[in-house]
Amino acid sequence: MDFKTKLQAAQDKNNSLLCVGLDPAMDRLPRPLKETDSPFFVFNKAIIDATADLVCAYKPNTAFYEARGAVGIEELKLTCDYIAENYPGIPVILDFKRGDIGHSNDKYTEFAFDYLGADAVTVQPYQGQAAMQSFLEHKDKGIIVLCRTSNDGSGEFQDLMVDGQKLYIRVAENIANKWNTYGNCLLVVGATYADELKAVRTVVGDDMSILVPGIGAQGGDLKATLEAGLNKVGKGLIINSSRAIIYASGSEDYADFARAKAIETVDAINKYR
Amino acid sequence: MDFKTKLQAAQDKNNSLLCVGLDPAMDRLPRPLKETDSPFFVFNKAIIDATADLVCAYKPNTAFYEARGAVGIEELKLTCDYIAENYPGIPVILDFKRGDIGHSNDKYTEFAFDYLGADAVTVQPYQGQAAMQSFLEHKDKGIIVLCRTSNDGSGEFQDLMVDGQKLYIRVAENIANKWNTYGNCLLVVGATYADELKAVRTVVGDDMSILVPGIGAQGGDLKATLEAGLNKVGKGLIINSSRAIIYASGSEDYADFARAKAIETVDAINKYR
Repeated sequence: MDFKTKLQAAQDKNNSLLCVGLDPAMDRLPRPLKETDSPFFVFNKAIIDATADLVCAYKPNTAFYEARGAVGIEELKLTCDYIAENYPGIPVILDFKRGDIGHSNDKYTEFAFDYLGADAVTVQPYQGQAAMQSFLEHKDKGIIVLCRTSNDGSGEFQDLMVDGQKLYIRVAENIANKWNTYGNCLLVVGATYADELKAVRTVVGDDMSILVPGIGAQGGDLKATLEAGLNKVGKGLIINSSRAIIYASGSEDYADFARAKAIETVDAINKYR
Repeated sequence: MDFKTKLQAAQDKNNSLLCVGLDPAMDRLPRPLKETDSPFFVFNKAIIDATADLVCAYKPNTAFYEARGAVGIEELKLTCDYIAENYPGIPVILDFKRGDIGHSNDKYTEFAFDYLGADAVTVQPYQGQAAMQSFLEHKDKGIIVLCRTSNDGSGEFQDLMVDGQKLYIRVAENIANKWNTYGNCLLVVGATYADELKAVRTVVGDDMSILVPGIGAQGGDLKATLEAGLNKVGKGLIINSSRAIIYASGSEDYADFARAKAIETVDAINKYR
């Protein structure tokens, strides 16, 4: 099943736009987990089992796994495999923000799609469409391009004026009108920038989904985000929360707390849909 | 020793601006290597032993290792460790083109600097300086920012006009004047764009080194590249070649052919310095 269909089915089945970011860090895991052979996988597995009926996607960020080298990548694979085997209706977004020349991007697609079996990836726009064809040609996968990022200072280049409009708007236009030949493109716009999210929604229309990080630990305003970004049918957004959910409790009851926080977040989102 | 010092020492000792890209791919390895436990490491080790007196740096691109998942990352680590132990004077540039929010970039620095012990990394500019502080604060490491990339179509965003100048020029200015507080920044400009390389050299002055991919398999013109990019003392460039050297022969004599091709390339470079 292609990413777009799978995502919409999960959003409908679970009545949820929530994506949970699976970003484990050793110094934040409950102590007993640190002594297991696969601390990240054990942690993720409990979070997944506790939230799989509440989410529309999971989003592991490779940075957290790579920090531990090869063993971290093993645990990332265990995590992706576990979701595919046990919750095949929930898509996996590999948040790896890669971008290189085509020859190298071919290899990154092998990592994301062949090795990990991810349904979608995040990528960088800077090298342009021609370089990113390796990704875009995977018609059944979601290719989620950074547009307006959630971090402080993201305007340094993204807000520069280009032909009377900001660069991130030009990025949104090019993705929507040129890169999206196969209808498999999405954008990333941070919840910390609701006005920008609204401007991007206007540019891309109602059909394109937007991945929105930055609620929760990063402080984005949920109401403003939803008002700015929802399409006409109250969808079109993937609202990501990582730390606020997976570390809702820092103790061994973390999965229960993650579930409670996920329910609270889904309810808060649905109140504004 | 910091990257800048180590790079200059290697350039002087070997009288070379050549960087060899260690980008192994299973389908291009000589057949007997494919049957070993560590085909990439065995391949790289022979290339390294055959060229360590001819180069100023090695540049493994993570894409090629990630394509094989955790075992590939193991082989990347074996490769980095081998260089550090046997050729401690030759810096390792980890070509991983990462860029994320600060919290995630912290983790990417753990991968690059703590786990792999790399001396320098390539990174993306799009999220701006504030996000990239995690990298920039590593004062002893080289932070090599994409500016004008070697691929076809790299002008889609990089050539857009911003305040009367192209975006890649603004990127070069910001890196040189703002990001480079600790003098640890470098830029990437492809050999396929000599005019752009000249423009960047003018902007950044003589002190900043520029990593130049795109000679060899990508077809960049060496003479034009050197005339455009060298600083006043005939340095300031790191000229990368990957496929043209490591696959100079596709057979078991690949290390000998790599050495011969490296000598030829260094001589060709030095003719124009």
